[in-house]
Formats: sequence, C-alpha cells, structure tokens
Amino acid sequence: MNRIILDRNLSKPLYIQLYEGIKSLIEENALEYEKLPSIRSLSKKLLVNNVTVINAYKLLEQEGYVYSVEGSGTYIKKSNFIDEGQILDDGDMDLMLSGILPISKESINFASVSPTPELFPIEEFKKALIDVLNRDGGLAFLYPEINGYEPLRESISKFVYENYKTKILSDQILITSGGQQGLDIISKSLVNQGDIIFVENPTYSAAFESFKSRGAKIIGIPIEENGIDIESLSANIKRYKPKFLYMMTNYQSPTTYSYSEEKKKKILNLAKENDFYVIEDDFLTDLYFDNYKKTPLISMDKGGKTIYIKSFSKVFMPGVRIGFITLPDQLLKGVIKAKHSTDISSSGFLQRAFDLYLREGYWKKHIEHIRQVYSNKYKLMVNHLNPLKKYGIQFYEPNGGLSLWIRLPEETDSLDFYNSCVESGLSLVPGKVFFIDDSYHNFIRLSFGAVNDDEIIKGINIMENILSKPFKNKGNDYMPFI
Amino acid sequence: MNRIILDRNLSKPLYIQLYEGIKSLIEENALEYEKLPSIRSLSKKLLVNNVTVINAYKLLEQEGYVYSVEGSGTYIKKSNFIDEGQILDDGDMDLMLSGILPISKESINFASVSPTPELFPIEEFKKALIDVLNRDGGLAFLYPEINGYEPLRESISKFVYENYKTKILSDQILITSGGQQGLDIISKSLVNQGDIIFVENPTYSAAFESFKSRGAKIIGIPIEENGIDIESLSANIKRYKPKFLYMMTNYQSPTTYSYSEEKKKKILNLAKENDFYVIEDDFLTDLYFDNYKKTPLISMDKGGKTIYIKSFSKVFMPGVRIGFITLPDQLLKGVIKAKHSTDISSSGFLQRAFDLYLREGYWKKHIEHIRQVYSNKYKLMVNHLNPLKKYGIQFYEPNGGLSLWIRLPEETDSLDFYNSCVESGLSLVPGKVFFIDDSYHNFIRLSFGAVNDDEIIKGINIMENILSKPFKNKGNDYMPFI
Repeated sequence: MNRIILDRNLSKPLYIQLYEGIKSLIEENALEYEKLPSIRSLSKKLLVNNVTVINAYKLLEQEGYVYSVEGSGTYIKKSNFIDEGQILDDGDMDLMLSGILPISKESINFASVSPTPELFPIEEFKKALIDVLNRDGGLAFLYPEINGYEPLRESISKFVYENYKTKILSDQILITSGGQQGLDIISKSLVNQGDIIFVENPTYSAAFESFKSRGAKIIGIPIEENGIDIESLSANIKRYKPKFLYMMTNYQSPTTYSYSEEKKKKILNLAKENDFYVIEDDFLTDLYFDNYKKTPLISMDKGGKTIYIKSFSKVFMPGVRIGFITLPDQLLKGVIKAKHSTDISSSGFLQRAFDLYLREGYWKKHIEHIRQVYSNKYKLMVNHLNPLKKYGIQFYEPNGGLSLWIRLPEETDSLDFYNSCVESGLSLVPGKVFFIDDSYHNFIRLSFGAVNDDEIIKGINIMENILSKPFKNKGNDYMPFI
Repeated sequence: MNRIILDRNLSKPLYIQLYEGIKSLIEENALEYEKLPSIRSLSKKLLVNNVTVINAYKLLEQEGYVYSVEGSGTYIKKSNFIDEGQILDDGDMDLMLSGILPISKESINFASVSPTPELFPIEEFKKALIDVLNRDGGLAFLYPEINGYEPLRESISKFVYENYKTKILSDQILITSGGQQGLDIISKSLVNQGDIIFVENPTYSAAFESFKSRGAKIIGIPIEENGIDIESLSANIKRYKPKFLYMMTNYQSPTTYSYSEEKKKKILNLAKENDFYVIEDDFLTDLYFDNYKKTPLISMDKGGKTIYIKSFSKVFMPGVRIGFITLPDQLLKGVIKAKHSTDISSSGFLQRAFDLYLREGYWKKHIEHIRQVYSNKYKLMVNHLNPLKKYGIQFYEPNGGLSLWIRLPEETDSLDFYNSCVESGLSLVPGKVFFIDDSYHNFIRLSFGAVNDDEIIKGINIMENILSKPFKNKGNDYMPFI
C-alpha cells in the first residue's frame, strides 16, 4: 500500500479515509487496472476490518466511482480512461475498455495508428461542407437511402475503379459509418451460432470479438510475411467447413505483412472450391511507400467470393465516420437490412460532403501528402530501431502502413516490457492482445501514426534504455496501490 | 395463374420455366406480398409435381431471390422497395423492408412521421457547423470519446434538466447515432436468448424485431388511452419473469396514447417490486400542443429502473443522426462497449455542432416553431376527419405528436383499405403491421409529419371517397400470379 495512509488517531472514520484515498487515486488516474482488490485481500493488507473496506467500496459506488458486479467484484468506472482530446483508435479503445492499456496524455504514443489533426485536409473538407449546405439546404439533413447517398456510391464506384482497377456498380455498394460498422453489420446479418470462421493469427481483436459474440467458432491460422500459411489453411479446411476467412490483405494489423499475388490467387481458389467467403478488411491499402502500388483482394476476385470492408478512418479522418462495404449480390440485401436495424442510415450530410470532396478531386492530393509524411516517419523509425537489433529485437520492413511489428528477445514478456515503457512515459501495444491463443508472448506493435519525429527518437531511446538492462519479468501482480 | 405459363412441350424443364416465371415477376416488382404460396398449394394449382415447385423454389433461393424460413415458408427478398430520394422514416423503411408498403413518390404521404426540410433550422445549424470548423479545426475530426463528446454530454444533461426537470450527470449519458442505434446497442448488450420482454401491443415493429433477433420471447400487453393495461401487465408478471418492459410514454407509436401520471407510478413500482427494467423510447415527448407539458418516465424514476432512449430525428433533423441513452450505472459499461463494437463512436464533428447549437440557445426557438406548425396541421387533420365519423371511423385526439390512430368500421380490413388508398394516390400505414398478434384488423395510422395543408385536405377527401362507398374486402388471397 504505497499511497493510501490510514490514520487511526484521526476523528475521521477509517472507511472514509480509505474511500478518500482510493477516490483520489481514481481521480488522478493512478490505477492501472479496472478491478479493485477483493474485500478480503484488501482488509488483510491494510489490517482493517472487512466492514471498513465494504463501507469504503459502498461509498465509492454511491459516489459513482466504481460499480460492483455480483459474484465478480468491484470495478472502477471507465470515464477516467476515456480521455478527451486523446488520439485514439479502434485498437486502443478496445484495449482500454478491456482495462489493459491506460494511456496517459503525457506519454509518447506508439500505440495509436490514427492520424493526427495536422494531417487532416480541413480546408478542402470545410469547403465541401459549406458547398453542400449552400447547395442542398435542408435536403442534406433528411434520411438518405439506407444503402447510402446515391451520388456518393457513384463516387466510390469511381474511386474503386481508379485506385484498384476494379469495376463495382454503385448499387453493389453500401455506405457504413466507418469500418467497424461494416464488421458489425456483416456479423449481424451473416454470422450465426456455430459458424466456423478462420482468422489470421494474430488479428484485429475487435473483429474476433464481433464474430465470437454471434456465437461463431474461431480458428486461428498463422500468418507469414507473404500472407496466411496456405498449408495450415488447407489442412484446416479439410478438418472444418469454414463459412468465412477474415483477412487484412495489405499491411495486416498487427503484423504489417502483405499478401503476395500468388497467395491471393490461392485463397480465392480455395474459397471457390470449398465454398466459403473471404471478409477482406481494408484500412491501409492506400498507404504504400514504395512504387509497388498494392491492391485489395477484391480486385482479383472474379468469382464473387469477397466481402470487402473499407475504412477511411486511417487514411482520411476518423471523425467523419464513413466507410463502405461491397459484397456478392445475394448477400447484399440481408446486409442492407442489418444496416437499417443498426442506425437507419449514416449521416446524409457527411455523405454529401464526402461525395463532393471526392468529386472535386481533393483525394489524390491528400493521399499523396500523407503517404509522403508517413513514409518519412516510417524511415525515421526503422533507422532508429535498426541499432537496437544488437539487443536481440527483430522486425519486418513493410514499406507501408502505420506500424512496425517487433519481436522482442525470447525471454521478454510483452506485457512486462509494455509496463516498463509506460513507467518511462512510452505507450505501445503488447502483442499478446492480438493473438487468439498463447502462441507468442514477445511481440509488440509500434505505430508512428500519432507521433512527431522528436517523439519517435525519444520513444526509441526509452526502449533502448529498457532493452539494454537485464530484463526482469514481474509476473502478474499489476495492482499498483497494494 | 395469370402470368406464368408452363409449356410441357419445351425441352426446358418445367421447374426452370417456373423459376424463370417467378423470377421475372419478382424483378418487375409485380408481387405485392412477400410470401410465396406453399409448395402444396402451388403444385396443385399448376397441376405439377411437388418436386417441380420445390426445385424452382430452391433455384430461386440459390440465386438470391427468395429465402426460406423453416416451418414457415418461402419469402421474397426485399431490395425492390428501396426508393431513392424518398422521404422515409424508421417506420416506413421497416414496412418497405418487410415488403408490405410500396410508397410511390407521387402519392400524398400520410405514412411518414418525419419532418420535412422546410422545418429544419438550417441557418442556425449551419452557423454552428461553421463555428465548430473555425474553432476546432482538425480536432473536430478525431475520434471522440466512445460515450460521446464530453461538452455535448454536459449540454444534454442541461437539456434534460431544463426540459424534464431531471438530474442526469454527463457521465451517465451515452451519445448514439440516432434512436434506432440506441435500441440496437441495448439489445446487443442486454438482451439474451430466452429473455422475456413485454411490449405494448401495438408497438414499433423495428424494436420488436430487434429484441426478437437476439432470441428474446416477446409478450404483448394491450395499451389503453392512458397507458398500458396495468391489470394485464400484473397478470403477465405473475406468469412470466420479464427482464424488460419496452414502452413509449408519450404519443406512443402507433396509438398516439400517453401515459397518465398514475400509470407511470404503478409501472415504476411494479418494476421495482418485480425487478425488471423499463426501456423507454422517447421520440415525441417535446411535441405537445396544449399547455400540459409532458415528461418522460425517467423524470419520475428514483429507483434506477429506466433505460431511456432519446431520438432527435423527429423533433430536430433525421440526417444529423444524434440521440442519446441514459441508464442505470451498473448497465452503462456494457452498453458503452456495445457502442464501441458497433461503430467506435458517433461523428465527433456533428456532436460538436449539435453541442454548440444547444449552447447557443437555438433549441427553444426551434421547438416552439415546430410545435406551432404541427399543432396547426394536427388541428386541420382533426377538423377534416371529424365529419368522416359518420362513416363509422373513430379516433383519439392526442393533442400532440405527429399522427392520428384511426379505427375503421369493423368490416373494413386495414390492408384492403390501404390498398384502395394507394390506388387513389394516398399512402398511409395499415395498423396490422404494428400488432404482434391478430387482435385488430381495422386500424390505420395517419401522420401529418410530411404533408402540407393542401395535401391533408386532399388526402382526407380520398379517404372519404373510399369510405362513402360500400367496402369490399378482398380476402387473403394476395398472391397476384395464382
């Protein structure tokens, strides 16, 4: 108990003292984990009566700092972890919700893959917004079609053709409120109890959770530098009858690996032969730093086996909440129905503005600009990480995307390494959270989406400091105030 | 069988001929109802083998035209009914999706409860949008907190206090992308297989569907002019153990009834005694036309039993897609998590603009304006409907909301009446779609949300024309190609 002092000589009751102590720790955000210690263990450590702890917890609950779950324990309320103005992304949020990742404002943020505001094309988008208001007036605030504002679907059809050389009709497109909603409504309309879904291992944990919540059985297939392990995939196809394979073709999260053309072909053949669909989650294809422009799997699919989910959050602006899905015709109607029951439709106003933004041709300039910016950050990070290889770290160079996937020395547990970094003011993501099993304990994901050059250099210095000393794993005792 | 011709002399198999015939009827949108005839009845009518029909239906299913529901039959898939540019609302969409309500653009629209663009406070909202862009720049396009932009939650806390005299902390509020999303994430996080949910009968069909899709068992309780039938509610509580009661306290849809203070108290007591929650769906409370200002159930709830869902779509602008939820602390965390897995967060930009709109005090002026406008339309509709009572119609006068709930003469089936109206250029909603059983066949809902004064008069003239003639029900043989 390092920060709460109980003084029996005060007239203030002990439980009030305890209440105030925990309360101020919560307010200072000093508690890393969401669950308070059990009443028994805390009363034992503090040498107080059970009732003192019970009363303190009750008061905390009354005051809205914690809540209790019957049979499970007492939990700190979340608003402390949700930090206004913080740059967050899907992955971070997920981690914070699961209580694993307390991000503090002061630390260097290698955890976030989200772009920072200075990269947002605000002037152009503002122009589009105002033009829409002047052009459409009240019409902009009606319900649009469930499947999305028709002109935007046309613009996106054009976008797909120009960028990925793929013809998709506007009627085959469904606009979503971001990529996560794409996943959600696909799960809702297509995933049923008992379905078998293959995922890359490691993978995006929110997708995994979304499938699991619908009662699907998830099988992880290892991913290699050029894509999923085809041998393992084939073996698993023989053993199970998959309904879907969920994959991220380019700059996979968290590994940063991209699929070779050959593997893409093999996957489409396997999907055709064995009658399953591929759910392709694409949020980074546009962010290549070399001259080898990548394309999504759907560009190669002639057999109608790909369910394609596109997010613009990482390559445009997360707050616009626009993405889209395109999928085989026979599945489209069900997914549109799921979209309707989810939120009727995405904001027509933002759809109109994004449509105008695309039509005015602002996209190309924007994507070239962020490619340049991130390419520089990427190179800086790689250059500064290279000397750390002498401590036994390894990493793949994806030449695109927003992250690096680092293998720490075998003896280093990623959660412990993460904790040491956080203590020194550096946030990153411990790889463990991406694996659907315990296959690896020593990977971390470093992202350069939300940091400037100085921070990249400082952050890697912090890592070097930790790596250069003999590393002591601490085990699982994470409760900092006990 | 007026349009499908089967020719036994062709080399083309009969089942393929049948498949093609039905397919083209579906494509031409020539089938009014969603269910295909049973295999037995169709094979009998066509003088073909059962297997011919089975194979044709199978092929239609494979090709994505129909789907079969075990134990129920074969249904036509929906997309034919989604009509670009149409002014739609939740209810309409639902009906169209269920294939019941083909709305044509030219007709007078008594079906929609959505406001029309000329009532939108565009100038003020535009000012708020531009002020946010100037004030916040790129920050406006970051991910906001999952539970919503903190200042907006504060503004809403203030809104609830000023309008409903109820104190709710900003941390107890979760911003959603409209009311439907509130329903969706509550279902997702709180409704499980086998849960028993009580609903008012008749009720909002999309809510019903949302609960049912999570495996809940739905029990309908009759609703009366001053709220749900408490006797029936109590009897059902004894028989079942409900987890939730879903209700619309003010201007219920479709009945337009509002709860008396006494019934509200009784419901809260029953909820406390029997340990269930009330899901209160509020989209019209603010639209009273008399001096008796209504308040939602949550204003009276001191026991933490109400899950309150607020939609601004009907009283502000549907395209902004902003609503909120507030609910007991112990449920909040799960619902925030469900929100995150649904779409990460609602657009931060629109949240900031709506916050500024509320802070600048525009709301009061707006709501007073639309109250005035709708009050006039309401009176006009009531005045023109009164003379039709001589044909045996009855209706309640809610003095608020956006609809009237009309009881047609006993011998008139609402679907047949609806069809006659549509033929004469008037859309409305047949009451049958709101009942969870067959209790009533002769109600219709007339809404004045999307019509002007002329249309109200013309629409009622159309109704009078139909009512003044002896009405011939067509019975239940709706399948036009048999």
